[in-house]
Parts: sequence; C-alpha cells; structure tokens
Amino acid sequence: MRVTSIYEPVQEQLAQVEELIASVQRIEFPWLESMLAHVLSAPGKRLRPTVALLAGHAGEDRSELVVPLAASIELLHTATLVHDDVIDGSDTRRGRPTANARFRNAASVMLGDYMFAHAANLICRTENLEVVKLFSRTLMAMATGELTQDMSAYQYGQDTMAYFHRIAGKTASLFATSAEGGAMVAGAPKEWVSALRDYGENLGMVFQIVDDILDFCGDEAELGKPIGSDLIQGTVTLPALLLMERQPDDNPIKKLFRNKRRQEHLDEALAMIRDSDILGESRTVARDFRDRAVAALAPLPETPATAALIDIVDYVLERRS
Amino acid sequence: MRVTSIYEPVQEQLAQVEELIASVQRIEFPWLESMLAHVLSAPGKRLRPTVALLAGHAGEDRSELVVPLAASIELLHTATLVHDDVIDGSDTRRGRPTANARFRNAASVMLGDYMFAHAANLICRTENLEVVKLFSRTLMAMATGELTQDMSAYQYGQDTMAYFHRIAGKTASLFATSAEGGAMVAGAPKEWVSALRDYGENLGMVFQIVDDILDFCGDEAELGKPIGSDLIQGTVTLPALLLMERQPDDNPIKKLFRNKRRQEHLDEALAMIRDSDILGESRTVARDFRDRAVAALAPLPETPATAALIDIVDYVLERRS
Repeated sequence: MRVTSIYEPVQEQLAQVEELIASVQRIEFPWLESMLAHVLSAPGKRLRPTVALLAGHAGEDRSELVVPLAASIELLHTATLVHDDVIDGSDTRRGRPTANARFRNAASVMLGDYMFAHAANLICRTENLEVVKLFSRTLMAMATGELTQDMSAYQYGQDTMAYFHRIAGKTASLFATSAEGGAMVAGAPKEWVSALRDYGENLGMVFQIVDDILDFCGDEAELGKPIGSDLIQGTVTLPALLLMERQPDDNPIKKLFRNKRRQEHLDEALAMIRDSDILGESRTVARDFRDRAVAALAPLPETPATAALIDIVDYVLERRS
Repeated sequence: MRVTSIYEPVQEQLAQVEELIASVQRIEFPWLESMLAHVLSAPGKRLRPTVALLAGHAGEDRSELVVPLAASIELLHTATLVHDDVIDGSDTRRGRPTANARFRNAASVMLGDYMFAHAANLICRTENLEVVKLFSRTLMAMATGELTQDMSAYQYGQDTMAYFHRIAGKTASLFATSAEGGAMVAGAPKEWVSALRDYGENLGMVFQIVDDILDFCGDEAELGKPIGSDLIQGTVTLPALLLMERQPDDNPIKKLFRNKRRQEHLDEALAMIRDSDILGESRTVARDFRDRAVAALAPLPETPATAALIDIVDYVLERRS
C-alpha cells in the first residue's frame, strides 16, 4: 500500500477542502491570521476529511455538500486540538510549538471557539438537519470524552472497558461521523451509511490505540513529543492498563502517580512495558479493531474508494508517527 | 413597570427551561456536576430565554420547540461567559468567584466546550434547519466580537462605529437570535419575525451600553466587580470613547494604556467622566436604541407578551446592576 493511493480517488475534492480551510484563515486581523495559519497549516494528514470524501463515493456525487462537511470536520478536529493543548498545558505538537505555547492561553481559547463557529457554519452548508444533529452529538461525545480523560487522570486501577469507552468518545466518534456523514450527504443507501459508521468507529479505535502505543515506543523526533507523555500527564492508556493488570501492587505507575521521583518511575514503567509483550498485545487489540473496520465494509461494492478506505486502516495501523 | 411582569406571560415555559438547564447539570462526575451547578445556578435574570419565549407568543404555541431553543441560548450564553472569564483572567462575576478562579483554567475551557455541545444539541431539537443556521451565524458573530475586543484592547483612538459594530456582534447578536429564533420556531409571520429580530438587536445594544455605563458609575457591591474594570482590561467602551473624543491629547486613558501608574490614571479618568455629561450622553445613546427596539415592535399586536417585551427594554435601560 502506498500512502498516496489513499488520496487518489478524492484528490480534486481534497483540494477544495484545503481551499475552504484556507478561506477561514483569511481574516482582517493580521495577528489572528497568523495564529490561524499556524494551527491550520500544521502538517496533518487530513485523514478525517479524506474518510468523509471517500465515504461520499458510496452515494451520488454531491461535492457541494460533502466538501463543506469534510472541511467542517477538519476544523472541528483542529479546534479540539487547540483547546486540548490548553487543557493539558502542552508545549509541542508534532514537533511544533502549540498555539498556547506560541501565543497565549487566552488567544488559544478564542481561536478554538472561532474555529468551532466556522465548523458549525460549514456543517450547515450540508443543508441536512440529520447531519447537523450527528455533528452536535459528536461534539457532545468528544467533550464528554475529554472531561472523562481529565477526571480519570492520575487514577490508578482503571479498567480496559472504561478506556475503550473514553477513546470511543474522544477520538472514534469523529472518525465515525466523518464516514457516516459523508455517506449521508451523498444520499447513500441506509445499509451502507450504517456500515460506514461502523467502519469509522473501528478505524478511530485503531487510530487512538496506535497513538497510545507510539507514546511508549515511537521515535521522539518523528512524534514531536517526548516518550511517555501520556503517563506524565496522568493519562492511562492501553499499555499502561495492561501493566497495571499484570502487576497491580508494586507498580512504577502507581508510584509515578503519587508524584514522587517521577522520572525514575517513568523510566522504570517504560522499560517494563518495552521488555514485556504488552506493546505486542496492544497491537493485537488494534489489529482486531482493524479487522472489524475492514469487515464492516463488506456490504459496499469494490470500488477504488472502498479500497482506499481499507488502505487507510492499514496505514493507521502501521504508521510510525 | 414591575420586574415580575416581564416573566408573567411565560412563567410556565420558563420553569421548563430551568428544568432543561438543570438536567445538563446532572452528570455522573460529582466534580463536574458541582462546576456546572456553580456556573448555571448563578443568579442571572434569564433575559435571553425570556425574550425567546415571549417572541414565541407571536406564533402558535410550540413549547416543545421554543423551550429547547430558550435553554440552548442560555447555555450558549453561559458557555461564552465561562470562556470570556478565562480569556480576560477575571476573578469575579456578579460578586461570585468565576469558574476559572474557583477551579482551573483548563477545567473552564472544558466546561465551556461541554456547554457549547449541550447548546448545539438543544438547538437541534427545534427540528428547524433555518434556526440552526441562525444559531451558527450567532456563534460566529459572538466569536468574532470577542476576538475584535481582544485585538483592539489597549488601543487608543478607536471610533464609535467600531464600538457599535463590536458590541453588535459580541452581545446584540444573541438577543437578536433569541427574539428571531423564538418567533421562527413558533411559525410567526415573516414580517413579525423580522420585526422581532430588529427588536432583539436594539435591545442587545441597550443592554451592552448600559453595562458599559454601569462599569463607570454602578455600585461595586451590586455589580460584584470593581468600578473601571473595562478600562483596566483595556476594553474601550462608549464613555471612554467619548472622553477620548473630547480630550484626544492629554488624556488619562492614553496614559493608563501605556501601563504606567495605572490606579492614578484610572481614578483621573473615572473622575473626568463622572464630572462631565459623558454618562448622560451615553444614556441618551442607549435610550435611542431603546426607542428603536420599541418602535420595531409596531407591527405586532398588543398582547401581554408584546407589553412584556417593551417592559424588558425599559428594565434593561433603567437597571442599576
């Protein structure tokens, strides 16, 4: 699978999405324009809009509806990242300073709200109340996921189901909405719409689990953030959960969360995870969601778009950053 | 005019709005529940939902649509206040600690986003795409108004038109949407819908101008914040603009904005404004918008709801806190 093959069936529409996103940046305040450019031109992979556009191929060609949907989803995603970085006090994302590090927290809050407003405006351009409702349910799922993550930070002894539930809200919901929304605005048959939602949900789970694995074993330069960032922020992800399960008592994460000699405990936890089969097991879980995502596509016809959707899951599973 | 008369025609529906708002608070996380209770149970006057409900009387009784609209507007308003307090770094609002003072900035950002999500969900319950579009345009107007206020902070020599434009976005747009939206979901005739939008816009202008006047002459205990807060934050409002116009050169605000001996310059500016007819002139401007709001209602029949809408403008004009 070549990465470029993912984008091939929707290249022209993706260019229109970029144009819409760029138009959000053009604003009369030079300072705001440079802030928007900073966050919107980050070297992202535009995975969610690509999924939305590809899902749109399951129906009629309604570019005038699916392009604003795809742009809306990317803006919502970016707005969420900007607010998340304020919430987590993060300084870098993908190797670049975050908006809150480069500007001020206050500016980042406003910037996020402004992008939320644009996302809301663009979603209305689908002229489809059901899609708008889907968008608003997704807002709720993401906001609740973010709150749940914050509420459960530094809490030892969480369970895997709670983790899956949390990442389903925080991450998978937007992938699910990308796929379902794209198919809906294109007027795809109901069965395909629901298959694509199922696909998107599972793709989102793969995405987040791999993200959480890379936090333990990725390349710091490629990731653009230090290894173990999640644990330092008190976020319990799958590999940490597995270590907790295997060693519930004398566990370095337990000590780390008590906030004593953090670096030492972090290093110990990282080493224990790397020396075990925990990352392999986590990858098996991710692969299981990958299989479910691919299986969900079974009702769809074999088209270049469907093939690209499968390629996306494999790319997300295999990526290194 | 008695204050209670404002609420009389919509008392029952207002209770339903309160119930909907209270239901947002009931959530499985005790900490979040207490934060939500803190911001949502603040002793507000629920002016915007009341306007929405009264405007709904211009059409059929569609409580099942207008009540969620009214609750959505109040939640959006509260979410905006919570984010604004983070942006401005405010410690008190109406004499109580702000969410960011009482909890953390991070929590306030999440809390605001969560209430935005609820507001979006409730607006979808109107089942009216035009109303949802109105809501999303209002989000944009408010976000742009907030950004404009921030961009123009501490800038000497602004003009009155820019001020009117800014408060139209930041404040009047939500009052306009309350009135227009209420009439729309009730299926009121187009002419009345547009009359009510016009009313709401002018009411919002009165509201903000009076707010800005009270910042110079109100009672600190009743306002729950120190006199001159706007100037200290660099926000240029109508009274400050009038002082700049009259004394463009040797002006204490100019000195205040240069950030030297702030209290001395603030006291001087406050004294100059109080000793002049500036607050009287500002009040004349507010009264002019009051007259426009009342005049806008001319096409509507004389009902208790219409009378209450007029009472609201007079109340907003005459209020002391």
